[in-house]
Amino acid sequence: MASVKVFGSPTSAEVARVLTCLFEKDIEFQLIRVDNYKGQRRLPEYLKLQPFGQALTFEDGKQTLVNSREICRHLAEKYAGQGNKDLLGSGTLERASIEQWLQTEEKNFDPPSSALVFNLALAPLLSMDQDKDAVERSKKQLDAVLKIYERRLDESEYLAGDKFTLADLSHLPNAHRLVHRPDCSSLFNSRKRVAEWWKAISSRPSWQRVVEMQQEPPHII
Amino acid sequence: MASVKVFGSPTSAEVARVLTCLFEKDIEFQLIRVDNYKGQRRLPEYLKLQPFGQALTFEDGKQTLVNSREICRHLAEKYAGQGNKDLLGSGTLERASIEQWLQTEEKNFDPPSSALVFNLALAPLLSMDQDKDAVERSKKQLDAVLKIYERRLDESEYLAGDKFTLADLSHLPNAHRLVHRPDCSSLFNSRKRVAEWWKAISSRPSWQRVVEMQQEPPHII
Repeated sequence: MASVKVFGSPTSAEVARVLTCLFEKDIEFQLIRVDNYKGQRRLPEYLKLQPFGQALTFEDGKQTLVNSREICRHLAEKYAGQGNKDLLGSGTLERASIEQWLQTEEKNFDPPSSALVFNLALAPLLSMDQDKDAVERSKKQLDAVLKIYERRLDESEYLAGDKFTLADLSHLPNAHRLVHRPDCSSLFNSRKRVAEWWKAISSRPSWQRVVEMQQEPPHII
Repeated sequence: MASVKVFGSPTSAEVARVLTCLFEKDIEFQLIRVDNYKGQRRLPEYLKLQPFGQALTFEDGKQTLVNSREICRHLAEKYAGQGNKDLLGSGTLERASIEQWLQTEEKNFDPPSSALVFNLALAPLLSMDQDKDAVERSKKQLDAVLKIYERRLDESEYLAGDKFTLADLSHLPNAHRLVHRPDCSSLFNSRKRVAEWWKAISSRPSWQRVVEMQQEPPHII
């Protein structure tokens, strides 16, 4: 029995981030999904509690964590010797650069991209009204962030240096939901370096596997 | 929080039987699915233990059950006053007829139909060899069973009488996997009454919902 357990759905951005990290680290785990039904209707309970899909609980033995970036740090540190060994770098300076960009993602990329995912992709599915002001504001914020990324990625192949790290990984779930949308695509694709970076990070087998999981039923039988 | 919990995948015949019953009875429940991953590979652990997909655990408060037909009986009895009230009939004679056909399903229909589902539908997916002797033997057995059904369904619309009951419901998961296959379809469709019966039971909203669940990812987000 695997000691690592993830409770949640691969279609949640938080869960997808953790699954990508687990695949990068080649860690054995259990994925546990819970759906509530009333009659034939599936109740979107998580949604009420967690409007941005942060429906995630993680256990590793006796340790329980709920923040996806904290979980990724934990996995990269505890399982340092297996799978991708570069996710948190190998020295203090590298780690500092990775942390800087990981926090840029959390503080600057995540809020506008989550607002766009929610209003553009999820609200219509849930028959909720889109907040058009939030959409415009978030697009401007995201545009400003990606302008900085473009300059950074002109200096190095990945955000924290020449290797794929948690700083890059953390962008995958939200960027994936936006980059193919006609109303957001140009934010990414009009920028040469950002577009190359997206192509490199999104084509990793770990992320491709998560995208597959977002679409597949959970068992063959 | 719902007191009824189902652990398993809707694509398992055992689980599908229970879900159909829960929908017929309009019962609130939680569906919990567990997948094991090693690296990017999902481990078919249940499959090793339970070759016919009987990967099911059911809890109702403090009661735990694992046999799908026993669970359906439990649901029809405990929740007698809600949803479809005909699943186990309303008197001793009706109940006796339902039990007779429910046991015919379990003892005569289930073994050959499970063997056909396993060898024809699942073995190729799992790159396992088909047991061609078992296929031929099972087809003959199923043919003999459906010959009896054809006579019975000439007398009454459903197996146990003029109403849809657990006796009919119990056939849905395996029949669904076989009836559309070119190599099995004629077993059902060459028989007028069996074909009409299949059309009636498979078009019920409860079963249609389970078929949908077998194909869908578990969450919107």
